[in-house]
Amino acid sequence: MKLQSINLEEKFSLIREHWSPRVIGELNDYQVKLAKFLGDFVWHRHEDTDELFLCLSGRLTIELRDRTIEVNAGEIYIVPKGVEHRPRAEEECHVLLIEPKGVINTGNAEGELTAPNDRWI
Amino acid sequence: MKLQSINLEEKFSLIREHWSPRVIGELNDYQVKLAKFLGDFVWHRHEDTDELFLCLSGRLTIELRDRTIEVNAGEIYIVPKGVEHRPRAEEECHVLLIEPKGVINTGNAEGELTAPNDRWI
Repeated sequence: MKLQSINLEEKFSLIREHWSPRVIGELNDYQVKLAKFLGDFVWHRHEDTDELFLCLSGRLTIELRDRTIEVNAGEIYIVPKGVEHRPRAEEECHVLLIEPKGVINTGNAEGELTAPNDRWI
Repeated sequence: MKLQSINLEEKFSLIREHWSPRVIGELNDYQVKLAKFLGDFVWHRHEDTDELFLCLSGRLTIELRDRTIEVNAGEIYIVPKGVEHRPRAEEECHVLLIEPKGVINTGNAEGELTAPNDRWI
């Protein structure tokens, strides 16, 4: 059990790379992750799970095949399972993600941007 | 599928009562809830689940039997399952909670402060 709360800004200050989620906590079999986004990610989907994005600073854009979702600081978007999406950020944004343990950042589209999983910070 | 992101401040502006979590979204079989806390809650535990608290404004105090956790704005604390806790707030604080669908706010200590479940906002 943690002895104190987790400060999100402190954790973000330790993250250097973009598109590489770091785990900060676990909620049952789910993980809470932080990531910095900048530029375009790849189109992908997660067949077995929804994915929660909470934008904490900057602005996150989530492209879906039939619309584009703007997620400003203080806003949440939950991408339903199986739905293709492409996150992007014109300026760096700080994002908190929640999804089941074991989910790979690039979903069905493994490649250059696939990040190591289960990396804590 | 939601057509746009969920703005947390807008949702909080619709909440009148304290200690009465409102659902704003679902992530698989989990719910994302918002609540305003003020004063002392009851000691309780959730036997079957961890519970995530993200403080968005103000300061949340979570008393455990052997220590007290301060959760400031921008901080998270995850209470492990089975651990007795008592949230309190000397000034109103805004909290985002995540836990499995069906979890009752007062856990094993049903009473006056038990809120209706699954109320969306």
